[in-house]
Amino acid sequence: MNRIALLLAYDGTDFFGYQVQPNRRTVQGVIEEALTKIHKGERIRVYSSGRTDTGVHARSQVVHFDSPLQLHDQQWKKALNSLLPEDVRVLNAAYAPSDFHARFDCKEREYRYRLLRSEEPDVFRRRYTYHFPHPLSIDAMKEAARYLVGTHDFSSFCSANASVEDKVRTIYEINLFEEDDELVFQLRGNGFLHNMVRIIVGTLLEVGVGKRTPENVKSILLKKDRTLAGKTAPGHGLYLWAVRYEIDLF
Amino acid sequence: MNRIALLLAYDGTDFFGYQVQPNRRTVQGVIEEALTKIHKGERIRVYSSGRTDTGVHARSQVVHFDSPLQLHDQQWKKALNSLLPEDVRVLNAAYAPSDFHARFDCKEREYRYRLLRSEEPDVFRRRYTYHFPHPLSIDAMKEAARYLVGTHDFSSFCSANASVEDKVRTIYEINLFEEDDELVFQLRGNGFLHNMVRIIVGTLLEVGVGKRTPENVKSILLKKDRTLAGKTAPGHGLYLWAVRYEIDLF
Repeated sequence: MNRIALLLAYDGTDFFGYQVQPNRRTVQGVIEEALTKIHKGERIRVYSSGRTDTGVHARSQVVHFDSPLQLHDQQWKKALNSLLPEDVRVLNAAYAPSDFHARFDCKEREYRYRLLRSEEPDVFRRRYTYHFPHPLSIDAMKEAARYLVGTHDFSSFCSANASVEDKVRTIYEINLFEEDDELVFQLRGNGFLHNMVRIIVGTLLEVGVGKRTPENVKSILLKKDRTLAGKTAPGHGLYLWAVRYEIDLF
Repeated sequence: MNRIALLLAYDGTDFFGYQVQPNRRTVQGVIEEALTKIHKGERIRVYSSGRTDTGVHARSQVVHFDSPLQLHDQQWKKALNSLLPEDVRVLNAAYAPSDFHARFDCKEREYRYRLLRSEEPDVFRRRYTYHFPHPLSIDAMKEAARYLVGTHDFSSFCSANASVEDKVRTIYEINLFEEDDELVFQLRGNGFLHNMVRIIVGTLLEVGVGKRTPENVKSILLKKDRTLAGKTAPGHGLYLWAVRYEIDLF
């Protein structure tokens, strides 16, 4: 048995998220379907660095699977891309150590959130950015973001029905930068809870428009209560941007 | 009766082109549908600066229509955008002189064609660029393009089944420039025949890869024979970028 790691990119717009669901088009679903074809009907299970929700994109997602087949790295990539739909691409494929795990070995995840600040919506970016034409105090947002960096219990910034027990995570960095008419949120951490990036972005936007103070974000964090934080920002502005491992996979 | 001009942008991906067709989703179709709602069922006919084909985008398209209603410019825009699907937007609306005609008064049309030159396809630009990972001699393409600038009979660069009689058009400029990993073709002219921009781009690409010489383009032009020119480049890389009139509409 060989363990193979794939580097994937996908446009999340037309998927019901990453994770397989009956009668839904999912990223995991189309990859497992392609692998099943390559393995002549044998069902192959794929493991990812983490799920992404409906509409959320991936610039770099890592998954792994096991196979009895022995193709060259580039053959895996070529065979999969010829079977996959256009909105998922295998960017790279490589054999990994037999104990490598895309999820458990992941040391760092980076997400980015793209906010389109132009007055008018843009038909060409409607799938890829969240259009937010309101004035923002970026300094206040940066100040608020500083309270979130570090190791905290992020219960207030996690979907209320999340099943995970331990809600302590470490955020290494939250960076806000402008790129033409977009404001980009860059978040790096050891892991993120369900909806955590989108709730952080939604809360920072409420700071940005003056609905909350930066200090309010500090108190929300301490109270561990989801109802105190801001709205969940829409999924279509969010990208799983990079996932990092101790070993160099590709 | 009032004549109203609209500035439109649309993502051509999910349309069967601009022009209305029975049982097909077209740009003209969705605009006329929205206008019919605003006019309580009365059918309103819309006239554009020119058609765009299936998959072809518009950054700036101008259309006009007549209406007995007297709304403010911004109300036209707002009312239409609330009824139009997300992939068409009214960027501006204004009253025009009663003899203004979006097509006949148009003095200049600018098209752009976006070529993605990266080795790998990009899931986020697959709808908006033509992926062309082959090496290109841009100097040879620029040299070939110079033969096309000016007033010529463009029969060789026009869809063979085009119904128009007069195939003489004037190209003011063909410019090729690089933008990150893209090569952009910019064409300005008084008008373009059916598929003309896409056949020019397809032919220039054949020069770029060394399949044709720049001088070959000159002889194709003189022979007025569509079979001598290159392939029609795919529609999804093409944008109606700007249309210009003598009067300042908006």
